Amino acid sequence: MLTGVGLGKDYEGQQCSLARALEVVGERWTLLVLRDCFFGVRRFTDLLAHLDIPRAVLSDRLASLVDAGVLARSEYRRGRHEYTLTPRGLELWPALYALSQWGEHHRSPSGRRRIFTHRPCGTELVTGGLCPTCRTVPPAGELSMRPGPGLTPTRTDAVSLALRSPHALLEPIP
Amino acid sequence: MLTGVGLGKDYEGQQCSLARALEVVGERWTLLVLRDCFFGVRRFTDLLAHLDIPRAVLSDRLASLVDAGVLARSEYRRGRHEYTLTPRGLELWPALYALSQWGEHHRSPSGRRRIFTHRPCGTELVTGGLCPTCRTVPPAGELSMRPGPGLTPTRTDAVSLALRSPHALLEPIP
Repeated sequence: MLTGVGLGKDYEGQQCSLARALEVVGERWTLLVLRDCFFGVRRFTDLLAHLDIPRAVLSDRLASLVDAGVLARSEYRRGRHEYTLTPRGLELWPALYALSQWGEHHRSPSGRRRIFTHRPCGTELVTGGLCPTCRTVPPAGELSMRPGPGLTPTRTDAVSLALRSPHALLEPIP
Repeated sequence: MLTGVGLGKDYEGQQCSLARALEVVGERWTLLVLRDCFFGVRRFTDLLAHLDIPRAVLSDRLASLVDAGVLARSEYRRGRHEYTLTPRGLELWPALYALSQWGEHHRSPSGRRRIFTHRPCGTELVTGGLCPTCRTVPPAGELSMRPGPGLTPTRTDAVSLALRSPHALLEPIP
């Protein structure tokens, strides 16, 4: 593994929209921070506990995502901030969903870890995030998720505990 | 930007299929290597010229992808190898497509760089990679692509030149 070669987050020579997207979300941990935002985690301390990463890395990733217009930062109490997905951030859902589905199919030997359903009709999504009842690819705000048989509940932080029950995406974690 | 903190490619504490997927494809350059494989680039020298990355990084990423069962390596001439996507690798298409579409919408001010159509019906794909005529999310092998108005053709390596014309995905670059 060569992680020290070719570091930096730009792909200057690449005339490619995938490269441009990876300049925003391709750094280590960034997509997992965004996953938590889709799950309804909003506060720095909750992100820190659920992701279990160094505080400096989380601060850096959040600042970059705010700069890129993917997350919005607002004060919920004097000196305390929360982060929510902007419309531009919400449009990252299909990419996160597709990557996690690949992980579900190929890297989850005990079965799916999360099961996603289309809330208006109650149907489980199929390949490509398609709702087979509505024949649409619904946005994150229309989805619910619940733990599947592949999820081994080992973590005991507040977010992990809350996500052991069914949960509507984007709804703040209680 | 903190690229030096929290390096390594595992996300051990994360009970999550997105994390498992990122352990395979989350390293810098890996998704761009796979993009080229979907475009029909198969040979080390072509990948090297088109990606313009250090030889050692490309070797490392290809070896990891072969180990993970995403690419298959075969000898096309004594001592010369080519790389093709396995069935497991082909299933990464929706993730690549979704990420690049996000880049197209938000990071390509002159318009789309690549336009994808569903070959059997000739229809351009819409959000989520859906073919609006067939109401399916077609696999990569059923797609063609052509340059869009946002593509500024600056590179002159053989792959870049070939991709200035319409091209069926997965078909070897001539």
